[in-house]
Amino acid sequence: MIDVEGLKKVVGEDWVITQRDQMQTYLYDETTPHQRLEPAENVVVVKPATAEEVSEILKLANRDKTPVYPRGAGTGLVCGAMPTQDGIVVSMERFDKVEEVDRENLMVVAEAGVTLAQLLEAVDEADLLFPPHPGDEGAQVGGMIAANAGGSRAVKYGVVRQYVKGLEVVLPTGEIVTMGGKLLKNNTGLDLMHLLIDSEGILGIITKATMRLYPKFSGTATLVVSYDDRHKAINTVPKILQSGVIPMAIEYVDHHVITMSAENLGMKWPANNGTGHLILILAGANEDDVYFQAETMSEVCQANGAVDVLIAERQQEQADILKIRSEVYSAMKAHISGDSDITVPPATLGKMLDSLDEIAKKYDTKISTIAHAGDGNFHPYMLKELAERGLMEEVKEEIYKAAIALGGVVTGEHGVGKIRLKYLDYMLDAKQEELMRGIKTLFDPNNILNPGTAIR
Amino acid sequence: MIDVEGLKKVVGEDWVITQRDQMQTYLYDETTPHQRLEPAENVVVVKPATAEEVSEILKLANRDKTPVYPRGAGTGLVCGAMPTQDGIVVSMERFDKVEEVDRENLMVVAEAGVTLAQLLEAVDEADLLFPPHPGDEGAQVGGMIAANAGGSRAVKYGVVRQYVKGLEVVLPTGEIVTMGGKLLKNNTGLDLMHLLIDSEGILGIITKATMRLYPKFSGTATLVVSYDDRHKAINTVPKILQSGVIPMAIEYVDHHVITMSAENLGMKWPANNGTGHLILILAGANEDDVYFQAETMSEVCQANGAVDVLIAERQQEQADILKIRSEVYSAMKAHISGDSDITVPPATLGKMLDSLDEIAKKYDTKISTIAHAGDGNFHPYMLKELAERGLMEEVKEEIYKAAIALGGVVTGEHGVGKIRLKYLDYMLDAKQEELMRGIKTLFDPNNILNPGTAIR
Repeated sequence: MIDVEGLKKVVGEDWVITQRDQMQTYLYDETTPHQRLEPAENVVVVKPATAEEVSEILKLANRDKTPVYPRGAGTGLVCGAMPTQDGIVVSMERFDKVEEVDRENLMVVAEAGVTLAQLLEAVDEADLLFPPHPGDEGAQVGGMIAANAGGSRAVKYGVVRQYVKGLEVVLPTGEIVTMGGKLLKNNTGLDLMHLLIDSEGILGIITKATMRLYPKFSGTATLVVSYDDRHKAINTVPKILQSGVIPMAIEYVDHHVITMSAENLGMKWPANNGTGHLILILAGANEDDVYFQAETMSEVCQANGAVDVLIAERQQEQADILKIRSEVYSAMKAHISGDSDITVPPATLGKMLDSLDEIAKKYDTKISTIAHAGDGNFHPYMLKELAERGLMEEVKEEIYKAAIALGGVVTGEHGVGKIRLKYLDYMLDAKQEELMRGIKTLFDPNNILNPGTAIR
Repeated sequence: MIDVEGLKKVVGEDWVITQRDQMQTYLYDETTPHQRLEPAENVVVVKPATAEEVSEILKLANRDKTPVYPRGAGTGLVCGAMPTQDGIVVSMERFDKVEEVDRENLMVVAEAGVTLAQLLEAVDEADLLFPPHPGDEGAQVGGMIAANAGGSRAVKYGVVRQYVKGLEVVLPTGEIVTMGGKLLKNNTGLDLMHLLIDSEGILGIITKATMRLYPKFSGTATLVVSYDDRHKAINTVPKILQSGVIPMAIEYVDHHVITMSAENLGMKWPANNGTGHLILILAGANEDDVYFQAETMSEVCQANGAVDVLIAERQQEQADILKIRSEVYSAMKAHISGDSDITVPPATLGKMLDSLDEIAKKYDTKISTIAHAGDGNFHPYMLKELAERGLMEEVKEEIYKAAIALGGVVTGEHGVGKIRLKYLDYMLDAKQEELMRGIKTLFDPNNILNPGTAIR
């Protein structure tokens, strides 16, 4: 039994949804239908506005041992935010304030429900930069941190973890705690903040974050480098990483995938040649610097078989390329049964691509792919027909095993969520899983927070 | 009772020291005598060579509930590695192999006892770069990770945490576990690896690490910028951070402190003007880039009151400056009673310096300082006479409180160790301390590993 009256007392009647037809968008995330679990039958959605309200909700749920599902924008791909047992969905959408863009300390303080788009806009207005760009700009700050989102633009300065300097978190037992601050160094005891990052909403509900910003780069350019052979494109990536120039992003895209995304948006992909492209985002202190970087990149790519190099310098042109790249999943979703975010050591990118080709051949299918190639992070797409032939799970498992054989992991950025628990065995020994369970119990003795997620 | 015979069976007789006069160097670290604790009376030093031997030692200690003190090079400043209860010191000095410098993946795999000097040399030979430079090059890899060392050169790419991608760890209960790998992204379950980083040797003994490398920068330069007024120097730092150029390091040094270090090494500090200096380490993809950066830095500094800018471009000249800076503590140690590593939001550096001046005036003493200024990280030095007047602890506490009032922390890089437990209250609420204790118990049910360190 969910204490609906209690919830209404905490957040006010207007912020509690009990009618099923009004909560459909809160029951799912962006996981493909073929991989998706079913939401539970008895779900209540609440929309608190303060950490204190979140605390009251958790105390109430903890008292009743009611499952609680913290929810950002629901852009996840592993059912991480889906309510799969009867319980309470806590939507963070009202935590929508960018509290401060601190130009002096180069830090932003944002509530958990602030979207990436909102964050980027606020930071841009202050003439500063938040470098990482986890694909979907609808994603919320709390979700990005709970999932340690990656995306493109992680090559030079890293994934979301590297930017988080402070957190306000409500623990499952109701305590509101703050960790870190506007600090670039902090070694105070065990680092609970780094444990909360990538905890997929099972240890606490993030309500606010302080994140590091950078000065805006005066010079930027985006290169689209085309190849006739996608293996040549992928094999160029380690050479780029070793060249001395560190791009903000090194993305790989199949030509037919990226053009689908462009069409889906009513836009035009700027490169016509080739079957695959590298997208390189360069940033420097001035135009000369970027010009030098672009020259170096162009040389490296041409020495490794590129057939065309397009350099976009105008802001709008660059933004369009990033937009088309970021929206690939929206275009692909209708055509695929499953996706993945395997990550391998960067020098084995070519071998991983070989494996994808071999697996595709073995199962007489096509495996399209895009990749945050600079991070060794592939997104292979399994077609719908594989699910229709009942082969999707088998193919996915082959892909996972191939990645692990190369020293890789099943998930570089999407996380474990609720649909990958069975693959944890591939990567973790029993002792580490035991420790993770122990930590969960320590934070959440009644296992109310996002049960069945991230750990077994 | 320590099972000396059991230990000898594990590592061989030659690698167990029981005679007190032969173990003096294993009983202390670099903490100043005025702040130092006393080592316990009954200590045995063992020197295992493999993770399996570490495992056997821990199983034996766990059986007997004997305290175990993992020890790197003993360069710590908070008694973190000191054996303060009767027990076993596990020296990692025989874990001295750089297993692999992987040029393709830009990763180094090193055993825990490899020193920073050894690591830098191996990486340099492969024409690659390990950016961070925690002061003392005698420090060992395991210790640097257990302490999440910072040092200079953390401004652009961060502290040691950001470089660690994989760990081999022996848990207090004897299990050997591996975490991560040659991976730039990894979101597999809760991140135990990031919990081990900065755990100060209380959760496990690190035996091996995989760390990220960068291509060597083709162009580097080191600027020594002199000021007549140290407040002007410090107040320049936020302006540098906002300029768009990101130096590898932004260090502040008092003139009399840095010249003492130079003299102590029989070297000569290159700048004669000013009472304080900023040291800026610049790195770029080519000489033009570095020249542009140096120009920009020079302009920013001069606009903020610098009286002299010296640009070192030759490798040896730059290495000398870094050497003199890195060895400051060796020179100061004889003259001071205590030091600190308070860290504040970067924009409050000037206010923190004001506070240091006020405190010095109040107690009629001099507080010299150096700072990893780009990180907001000060090292104020308390003179010996303060301890003689019985005021050292009081002054230290005033410094800590001033840092915390600015949104800072007591420790940015040295850690809590055994001498700062009482200051945890200043930064952590009771719940977070309870969670830290719970995690400790989970990993180490008999509390054998480095007891009395990092947490209460």
